[in-house]
Amino acid sequence: MATNIDKNIDLSVMDPDHIETTQEKVSVDVFLGVDIGGTNTKIGLVRSNGDIIVMSAFPTQAHLSFAEFVENLTTHVNDELLANSPGLDMKGIGVGAPNANFLNGRIEKASNLSWGTVDVVSTLKKKYNIPVAITNDANAAAMGEKYFGAAKNMKNFILLTLGTGLGSGIMVNGSIIYGAGGHAGEIGHMVVDPKGRVCGCGRRGCLETYVSAPGIRRTVFELISEYTEPSKLRYISFSDLRAEDITNAANEGDQIALKAFERTGRILGMKLADVVALVNPEAIILAGGLAQAGKYILEPVQRHLETNLLNIFRGKTTLMISGLMGGNLAVLGTSAMIMQQINRDLD
Amino acid sequence: MATNIDKNIDLSVMDPDHIETTQEKVSVDVFLGVDIGGTNTKIGLVRSNGDIIVMSAFPTQAHLSFAEFVENLTTHVNDELLANSPGLDMKGIGVGAPNANFLNGRIEKASNLSWGTVDVVSTLKKKYNIPVAITNDANAAAMGEKYFGAAKNMKNFILLTLGTGLGSGIMVNGSIIYGAGGHAGEIGHMVVDPKGRVCGCGRRGCLETYVSAPGIRRTVFELISEYTEPSKLRYISFSDLRAEDITNAANEGDQIALKAFERTGRILGMKLADVVALVNPEAIILAGGLAQAGKYILEPVQRHLETNLLNIFRGKTTLMISGLMGGNLAVLGTSAMIMQQINRDLD
Repeated sequence: MATNIDKNIDLSVMDPDHIETTQEKVSVDVFLGVDIGGTNTKIGLVRSNGDIIVMSAFPTQAHLSFAEFVENLTTHVNDELLANSPGLDMKGIGVGAPNANFLNGRIEKASNLSWGTVDVVSTLKKKYNIPVAITNDANAAAMGEKYFGAAKNMKNFILLTLGTGLGSGIMVNGSIIYGAGGHAGEIGHMVVDPKGRVCGCGRRGCLETYVSAPGIRRTVFELISEYTEPSKLRYISFSDLRAEDITNAANEGDQIALKAFERTGRILGMKLADVVALVNPEAIILAGGLAQAGKYILEPVQRHLETNLLNIFRGKTTLMISGLMGGNLAVLGTSAMIMQQINRDLD
Repeated sequence: MATNIDKNIDLSVMDPDHIETTQEKVSVDVFLGVDIGGTNTKIGLVRSNGDIIVMSAFPTQAHLSFAEFVENLTTHVNDELLANSPGLDMKGIGVGAPNANFLNGRIEKASNLSWGTVDVVSTLKKKYNIPVAITNDANAAAMGEKYFGAAKNMKNFILLTLGTGLGSGIMVNGSIIYGAGGHAGEIGHMVVDPKGRVCGCGRRGCLETYVSAPGIRRTVFELISEYTEPSKLRYISFSDLRAEDITNAANEGDQIALKAFERTGRILGMKLADVVALVNPEAIILAGGLAQAGKYILEPVQRHLETNLLNIFRGKTTLMISGLMGGNLAVLGTSAMIMQQINRDLD
């Protein structure tokens, strides 16, 4: 870890092109963002102004033990981030992971990781002796939007991650909602139809069985079974079908693909109207793989949301696609989370 | 208004049986709670420990102008509350009303009041020159539970008012959610069935068309049309039927009444499971007229909530009936709101 020569100089907001040097070495404050996914882990060092100084990624190798993962993480952080950027003072670590609980610092039985329940915050605090916080990827992404993205001036908004599942980070009055047990924001498990599609959670009809990358694939297959229009999607197996194939087909005017986005947008728009009634956000930001479909997903969600809103909310809830790229959003969000945490502790 | 003799003595937390006297008259800090309903307005002076010193009520006479209402309110507060309890120092006013907006201090076109949009906070501030805040009845009731009721030790809970409509006050991390426009908590307008019952809001299938005093009356008539069981409810017109008639019938084992509570509880329990997924409260408290049905409403809601919850929330969300009586809850809630507001402003 880089060492801090003069702790009294706050360099965190300095222009990077104008770093003062003294007789001693000068350090720049940075925050480590760690995004643990089932496949890859992304890491990056971020300044408090949102500049990403250096990023990297490595295979999570979820089959290894948590202790081995931490060893790998430490090696990558030390060798690839800190060693190559001298003069950095790492002030805190923000971690995003599936089933991560901000309130207790743990990853709790994430289905894509084989670690059971592990105390990430304590483990990393022991390693680095600096503040550490963890949350799930959707909450971290919401922090990224709040500090460095489209939600900079917003105190009440919702970020949705449309990926393998459907998650949400709900920002109310400038703070993420965690709830009594740290599990708030499980929008993917609001129920659309109690007799609907089987969900990984053991119930039926959860929103994420319709609105997520696998959800829209299921919808394509449902539509293929209902309609007879020709479609290039008829030539792809369920297992081979990727969300971007559906976007590409929509680009070519494929009727099944366009109907799939329409149906997905209708279900999400209707359910978001319920969410707006409860928390009255000024904006809803879509992120994650399926959000890369852009207008194909944005337009139907917007239309069905507006149609279904209670009149006092109509025209007052902006829907948008995140402007931050996937990897960047994860690293910016996790580092923003620990920056906010440290600021709060200082208050 | 009572005057404060010594502003440096904080008597607000004193034991009422042990009021120190000095050479000058000693004053006790109180907060005025005002609950404006379509029919009656309840007023009361409350100490910061929750003791209601004096309460009163008067007909709102919603057909009169807002200026006339304020004159009436002032007269009742001065003549019935303050004049009869010398030595009180009124420190703030909390108002609860339908369609009241905490963020701008206004009542906005409440359908039961003929005033259009009126600035309650400014008007009362001018009259009394003390802090004033307003919110809707559900948010005020949630404050009452937090300060003086079942939710004293809770930071994350939801209070539902099952009355003429269905409202909610959502407390997250110790604060009410207001949202971007002050309209958060509109749980009554989450949609159960987009092709369902016509709602006063102009849409169909809103939760409050099923779960409210008029909602369960509609359910009774739906059940009478579906079933053939004998029921004393068959002898009461829709217009004459009161929620308490349904409770009384249930007490006597009336099958239509029992089915009505079951159906109401199923719909509310299912929808609350969605709400829990979003905000993860530790408790949900039922208040309002229909909550007086007690076990008849509590038991089916509890059962269907538990059945429909995502596994991580099961067994972790307490459902209860408010222990504070209707009028008391309104006065305690509105006065608690202004107490909290004043404390925040002092922070």
